[in-house]
Amino acid sequence: NAQINLAVIGGDGIGPEVVAEGLKVLDAVSSAKVERTEYDLGARRWHATGETLPDSVLGELRGHDAILLGAIGDPTVPSGVLERNLLLRIRFELDHFVNLRPSKLFPGVTSPLDLEQVAPDGIDFVVVREGTEGPYTGNGGALRVGTPQELATEVSVNSRFGAERAVRDAFARAQARERKHLTLIHKHNVLSHAGHLWRRTVEEVGAEFPEVETAYAHVDAATIYLVQDPGRFDVIVTDNLFGDIVTDLAAAVTGGIGLAASGNINPDRTAPSMFEPVHGSAPDIAGQGKADPTATILSVAMLLAHLGRDDEARRIEEAVSADLAERGRTPRSTTEVGDAIAARV
Amino acid sequence: NAQINLAVIGGDGIGPEVVAEGLKVLDAVSSAKVERTEYDLGARRWHATGETLPDSVLGELRGHDAILLGAIGDPTVPSGVLERNLLLRIRFELDHFVNLRPSKLFPGVTSPLDLEQVAPDGIDFVVVREGTEGPYTGNGGALRVGTPQELATEVSVNSRFGAERAVRDAFARAQARERKHLTLIHKHNVLSHAGHLWRRTVEEVGAEFPEVETAYAHVDAATIYLVQDPGRFDVIVTDNLFGDIVTDLAAAVTGGIGLAASGNINPDRTAPSMFEPVHGSAPDIAGQGKADPTATILSVAMLLAHLGRDDEARRIEEAVSADLAERGRTPRSTTEVGDAIAARV
Ligand SMILES: CC(C)[C@H](C(=O)O)[C@@H](O)C(=O)O
Ligand SMILES: CC(C)[C@H](C(=O)O)[C@@H](O)C(=O)O
Repeated sequence: NAQINLAVIGGDGIGPEVVAEGLKVLDAVSSAKVERTEYDLGARRWHATGETLPDSVLGELRGHDAILLGAIGDPTVPSGVLERNLLLRIRFELDHFVNLRPSKLFPGVTSPLDLEQVAPDGIDFVVVREGTEGPYTGNGGALRVGTPQELATEVSVNSRFGAERAVRDAFARAQARERKHLTLIHKHNVLSHAGHLWRRTVEEVGAEFPEVETAYAHVDAATIYLVQDPGRFDVIVTDNLFGDIVTDLAAAVTGGIGLAASGNINPDRTAPSMFEPVHGSAPDIAGQGKADPTATILSVAMLLAHLGRDDEARRIEEAVSADLAERGRTPRSTTEVGDAIAARV
Repeated sequence: NAQINLAVIGGDGIGPEVVAEGLKVLDAVSSAKVERTEYDLGARRWHATGETLPDSVLGELRGHDAILLGAIGDPTVPSGVLERNLLLRIRFELDHFVNLRPSKLFPGVTSPLDLEQVAPDGIDFVVVREGTEGPYTGNGGALRVGTPQELATEVSVNSRFGAERAVRDAFARAQARERKHLTLIHKHNVLSHAGHLWRRTVEEVGAEFPEVETAYAHVDAATIYLVQDPGRFDVIVTDNLFGDIVTDLAAAVTGGIGLAASGNINPDRTAPSMFEPVHGSAPDIAGQGKADPTATILSVAMLLAHLGRDDEARRIEEAVSADLAERGRTPRSTTEVGDAIAARV
């Protein structure tokens, strides 16, 4: 426990820059010896070798306590290649069925919302996005591609097993929080089969958590609530695609994806979990020292909490909170933000 | 042309109340004789007879120039029954492949956004949501329902034919607008088959519209843009599900679903188009005179424009704009709003 074996995937674009700051803060805060192994994965490797995630590398990743990821994706690589064969492959192979995305409005942060009007009591919720099913499974296909008769399907695959383990995790989180409130987001009035599966699962698992109050919102209505009354949410549970959408919106309303952290978590601990900022590789600003590393630093805090190092996680969160409260309007560089937070932990 | 044969479906909840105000404004503005036939469809009929949309009624609807719909859906009816067998059935049977949803910030309207910060130049865009394909086709199914081995699938069905006609309509609209800009919203890095079909269709149809500039946003990123920089959008084209989600969010940022109008349009005019507010039946406030009929009134303006009565449509829009500019914070009743707008046209 005095050592953390960490796999580090800087990835593409701003990924390596923000990961460097995350590691800086990790070193500053943790009493553990951090053994890190860097993995060269992403666009560069694909161009050089055609490889996205060799089986041997996947095997090595499994041997670590946790993975820290920067960002994956580059315009020079055909859309989907790295996303599906690298990022999603890790999430699926390491059974990251809980994609955990907290949304918290830190004091001093500017939001695109008129906060006094719509969130007088602040915003503090967490999304449990199911991570191994839904329309992300790669099911579906295409016929007569490139002809006027082209057909393409995408299949959302949902199982009781898959929904239930995410839902149970979400209820346990709600139970541990002050408000003990859980909202299912789906679209069961149109996607009836999957929607009813999710709805019944929430009802049935909910019986095990009588103290937790539950609510439901269609995904379209949920986007309205997220801008008109985000304070209503405590824990949200939803499928892989709806979770992708609402967590980007949630990040935007709580100060932007520069601050949004996430954990791809395997709660059964049969494989290491992976922590990454919600933002992408932002190739337009890569290498310019403009990227905000805060989301990665907060992802490091989630990583430490997952490894049972709650005190160190809390110290990072407090340092970030203090830094955000004092951030002026003058932009700082990636390393300046990292240095400032590292100095505070 | 001096007569409009209108089918009216008040529907559930606040539907009949807001439709009454829409008809009031229609009568006040139009020089046409409005022949209306009211259809009793929705929760009441389903409870009384088990019917959602009898074939004979569907046949009668076809005989009209246009349909005005209030809202469909009630908590006493199992989720999906009315949505699928009534609302979506009309959209699919009457081939409403363009679900047109304008988002415009009228002067004086309050938005949950900090408008000075994020939309200094206003918001004025229109979404072309494909209306007859995608995950709305009812494809998919369930296995071993109610057991721990339950499986449920939802299939998004996309054809070149279906995407192309929506995309071409969207390009034509962009071409006719000042900014001539079109954004495709999809998620092609994960939903590769459908995503690539949509992307190629936009590229290829775009060649017919060399003056129109095109952009692309993943649906998750699009929700961020909609709150951080909504002014960037001019025309958006997207699939049925993503369109459902982004138009609710778009409505929220431009003053709420009390103002959001929509048209389910059959541009080929092989069947009547249907106009309806984006909002739902809001059973919690039904019968209390609290519902804002503005969205329905603006839907009537879209109906008139579709029937070639542009001048009358414009007069409604101007009346709504003037009314909104003078609306104080004191809430008015449904009929008061209808009266005020009718008096202005
Ligand atoms: C890059 C993409 C595949 C990914 C996703 O859709 O899950 C991203 O948007 C995210 O949310 O982590
Ligand atoms: C009621 C529902 C089926 C409908 C939809 O999803 O299309 C509604 O949300 C809308 O946007 O018109």
